[in-house]
Amino acid sequence: CTQLTAQRQLDSTIKSTNPIIPIHKQNLLKNIDVIANMQWSLNNYFQDGKYQQSKFENDQFRLEIRGKITDRVSFRFRDRYTKVTEPGSLDNLSRSTDIASITINLAKKWDLTMGKMCADWGGYEFDANPIDIYEYNDIVEYSDNFLTGAMISYTANQQHQFTFQLMNSRTQTFEEIYDSIPGVTPSKFPVAANINWRGTMAGGKFQTIWSYSQFLEAQNRTMYYIALGNQLKLNKFLFQYDFKWSNEQLDRKGIVGSFVPKSILPYAPQNTRYVEHWLHVNFQPQKKLNFFIIGMVSNAYWYGNPDPNKDNHLRTAWGVIPGVEYFPFKDLDNLKFFCTYVGRFYKYSDYAKRTFGDVDTNTGRVSIGFICPLLIL
Amino acid sequence: CTQLTAQRQLDSTIKSTNPIIPIHKQNLLKNIDVIANMQWSLNNYFQDGKYQQSKFENDQFRLEIRGKITDRVSFRFRDRYTKVTEPGSLDNLSRSTDIASITINLAKKWDLTMGKMCADWGGYEFDANPIDIYEYNDIVEYSDNFLTGAMISYTANQQHQFTFQLMNSRTQTFEEIYDSIPGVTPSKFPVAANINWRGTMAGGKFQTIWSYSQFLEAQNRTMYYIALGNQLKLNKFLFQYDFKWSNEQLDRKGIVGSFVPKSILPYAPQNTRYVEHWLHVNFQPQKKLNFFIIGMVSNAYWYGNPDPNKDNHLRTAWGVIPGVEYFPFKDLDNLKFFCTYVGRFYKYSDYAKRTFGDVDTNTGRVSIGFICPLLIL
Amino acid sequence: CTQLTAQRQLDSTIKSTNPIIPIHKQNLLKNIDVIANMQWSLNNYFQDGKYQQSKFENDQFRLEIRGKITDRVSFRFRDRYTKVTEPGSLDNLSRSTDIASITINLAKKWDLTMGKMCADWGGYEFDANPIDIYEYNDIVEYSDNFLTGAMISYTANQQHQFTFQLMNSRTQTFEEIYDSIPGVTPSKFPVAANINWRGTMAGGKFQTIWSYSQFLEAQNRTMYYIALGNQLKLNKFLFQYDFKWSNEQLDRKGIVGSFVPKSILPYAPQNTRYVEHWLHVNFQPQKKLNFFIIGMVSNAYWYGNPDPNKDNHLRTAWGVIPGVEYFPFKDLDNLKFFCTYVGRFYKYSDYAKRTFGDVDTNTGRVSIGFICPLLIL
Repeated sequence: CTQLTAQRQLDSTIKSTNPIIPIHKQNLLKNIDVIANMQWSLNNYFQDGKYQQSKFENDQFRLEIRGKITDRVSFRFRDRYTKVTEPGSLDNLSRSTDIASITINLAKKWDLTMGKMCADWGGYEFDANPIDIYEYNDIVEYSDNFLTGAMISYTANQQHQFTFQLMNSRTQTFEEIYDSIPGVTPSKFPVAANINWRGTMAGGKFQTIWSYSQFLEAQNRTMYYIALGNQLKLNKFLFQYDFKWSNEQLDRKGIVGSFVPKSILPYAPQNTRYVEHWLHVNFQPQKKLNFFIIGMVSNAYWYGNPDPNKDNHLRTAWGVIPGVEYFPFKDLDNLKFFCTYVGRFYKYSDYAKRTFGDVDTNTGRVSIGFICPLLIL
Repeated sequence: CTQLTAQRQLDSTIKSTNPIIPIHKQNLLKNIDVIANMQWSLNNYFQDGKYQQSKFENDQFRLEIRGKITDRVSFRFRDRYTKVTEPGSLDNLSRSTDIASITINLAKKWDLTMGKMCADWGGYEFDANPIDIYEYNDIVEYSDNFLTGAMISYTANQQHQFTFQLMNSRTQTFEEIYDSIPGVTPSKFPVAANINWRGTMAGGKFQTIWSYSQFLEAQNRTMYYIALGNQLKLNKFLFQYDFKWSNEQLDRKGIVGSFVPKSILPYAPQNTRYVEHWLHVNFQPQKKLNFFIIGMVSNAYWYGNPDPNKDNHLRTAWGVIPGVEYFPFKDLDNLKFFCTYVGRFYKYSDYAKRTFGDVDTNTGRVSIGFICPLLIL
Repeated sequence: CTQLTAQRQLDSTIKSTNPIIPIHKQNLLKNIDVIANMQWSLNNYFQDGKYQQSKFENDQFRLEIRGKITDRVSFRFRDRYTKVTEPGSLDNLSRSTDIASITINLAKKWDLTMGKMCADWGGYEFDANPIDIYEYNDIVEYSDNFLTGAMISYTANQQHQFTFQLMNSRTQTFEEIYDSIPGVTPSKFPVAANINWRGTMAGGKFQTIWSYSQFLEAQNRTMYYIALGNQLKLNKFLFQYDFKWSNEQLDRKGIVGSFVPKSILPYAPQNTRYVEHWLHVNFQPQKKLNFFIIGMVSNAYWYGNPDPNKDNHLRTAWGVIPGVEYFPFKDLDNLKFFCTYVGRFYKYSDYAKRTFGDVDTNTGRVSIGFICPLLIL
């Protein structure tokens, strides 16, 4: 009777009854995981070789709830505590919420996911748990990675899976991202389509995550994105290599836009391109120890520059991330301490320097901290 | 000893000890539900018959935790991820938090609820889980529905329950809602009182949720609200009819205020009235299928208009929502897919058109998506 | 296979498998607590003896998850729903998140905590669960109490524990707190160090929480803080006495800064000091009833005032909080109803009145409500 009185806007279809922890609840408790995804560190920052500052930072804190609700329905929710929480102007969900989706098993091999979800872009860099990334290369860093829509998955067999997504192409309105651009009309349905192949070959030694995407950014303005992720496992070595290519009829990343002074071009540039390589090598001589090095490069081009003397290539951004990870616990083998250096080197073309006044620069970060996806329930 | 070290601001009255899942915890696990209330859809918008735009939207995402703590104490918490989170300036709780309350069983038939809660207004439209509503009529849409205060419930028997609430009349200060109005002084205790009767008659075939409320908005400025909800179940048919009447000495809804140009009246109007009818018919020919149609109308009046040639009646807003719902799962029978049309038609009186320049308009929305109050733990 | 399809950015190191509630999960369920920390009341406010206003308020709502993950790792998370959620500009975590940390048992008697945590300042006032505090004295009220960093604990024995913390000295940047101050350069590593002793003597009758801290606020500008908390238990009586002393080379609390008109000093004052006494007496004649009175005083000094005729002592703020608490439930013995008066009396020195135009004032609050750290899972 307390129950009856207390509740309004109750959904009468949900009830929990009977003996101590009924079977239904036991199944949920077994199948649902609650995870605190954490990355914490003491970060020491450098600019052009000069020490700038140090601070303790909660680099990542993402609370996650996921699992199977019934044999055919599963759920995933992930929310950040390191991001502003106002709802996206296009998709209506808090910008801090990465994922809020359900997945329905339609038939043998076929699944349907609906809600806000990871855009299923290929590449091992993006597919990793974000807490395992010390710094993203430019494309992933400046993308809207969590989009609202639907996904169909076809799992051909244990070796090959294919997904197809249809989503909003962004979380915010055209006006919020681009303001206005002469001659460009916002699209009535800013939609993104993505196909993805995950393959496992050679008994798991070689794996791939390849994808192709198209984003309608405005009427007659599309973004084309290819990501080819490849992984090779050899004994104590793990190699991951991603190739990424983003052709943007409107400069969605805003990187080229940031090179050009507002006095020369007061709105977002058109016809930009970003081409990236990302290589990650792990050497794990024993269970408790991992050495890694990441090398990455991002090239930025502006083909839409009206200047007849232009050089399309404006900038090359290099990145190098060597480090070591230590896993102290056998019974919690995903908790690791790390020590890493993140170096970024930004080199502009002579044309960009001369015409736009851009200046080469580099940044560094020495970090020591811990990472864990902590299963708390 | 880890425990001892780790914790500060610990409440020493809470401890979990002993064998694997102690009885106390088992009881909690049995009695507490964690629910993800979701509505997601692809929405296609029309304005005055013309297609405007399409987008995927997370229409609703409200996380809920509720249940019995002990035999005499229960708890309810519900928080939206589709709303700004800054604390209410009057009640101090995040505006995204609908409910944060405890209910204490005082005696047989008597319960006391304290905290932020649903205002216990009558009417089946408001009493439904919000995820089951495709569009609210004007009164509910523009009300502060979740208020802080206390509620006494008296459950006479299985057929009749009465509640009495005393709450803040809003979540924000007078100044934030009304700015300032000449001749109107904010109240020192902006309080709302509400009485509600929930009745069940004819063996459950006929049910009611009737309520009467008074809101003190400012000194000598009260809002009176009557809502009479009635429900009839006949085999495969369900009929719900709500009558709502809101008499506002200060225009709390702001609807009439939005009709009048600021150049004619620079602050909130006084003595407005809203009168509404809402009819909902369900026809469920079989367990997995439901057809529904909702018809609604909202009339807006301004009795406080100083114009001697006034017409009190300024606008009639019509709404029609036909649709179909499909329940694919036997073991998750509250998950449904839906396809619906939401049409709204706004017709102004000749006086409003002539004097205030208001123009008739209509909007449409075609939506396809899913709804579920997903029990996740 | 639903699982496989649904998830991206999965951490493959987390899986839940096998029979209904596997042992690992049972251990988590046993050891992890989910707590809703609530304080709710009807507050009636007075200013200089004159009634101002009444309102229901959710004074406190902090959701907490904490417990042991494995024998050597524990976790704590606490988040407020009564505070803005934007991430701290220095520590990157939501300002509403008090605590997000893990504790690792390094060795017998030694533990290491990392993340955002309670600054381990001494004093019983700060060490209490915030829901048990009706009003803080000035130092705790105006401090950044939840900071990011690391803590080492040494538990000598059941009677004595020592902790050492190294943390950011704030959650926000220098510029956000102080704007700019002529002659003051922000520190490159704004760090705080804290040592704390918790002692238990005389068979638990006498206990202490003493601490000493240093905060680097800017280059050559340090804050020194001493807090000495002492507790005596005698039958039905509990006495707690805190002495607090904060010497601030930059006025971190901003209290002295608020006394001085911007026209006299347009930026934060230097060399301020706050000295406080806090006495709390509980008399619990029976299990269900507690009478308490808190007396507190806070003295504010400005030694850095350039005026040759200055009086260093600018203000004395008195506080008195008498009240009664009633515990209705045997099986939920931390849920209490309370009725309390909070009186604050602010008396300025003649110098402050004459030179800065400060005026004596007092405020009152009569509150009735409930408090509970509700174990919900």
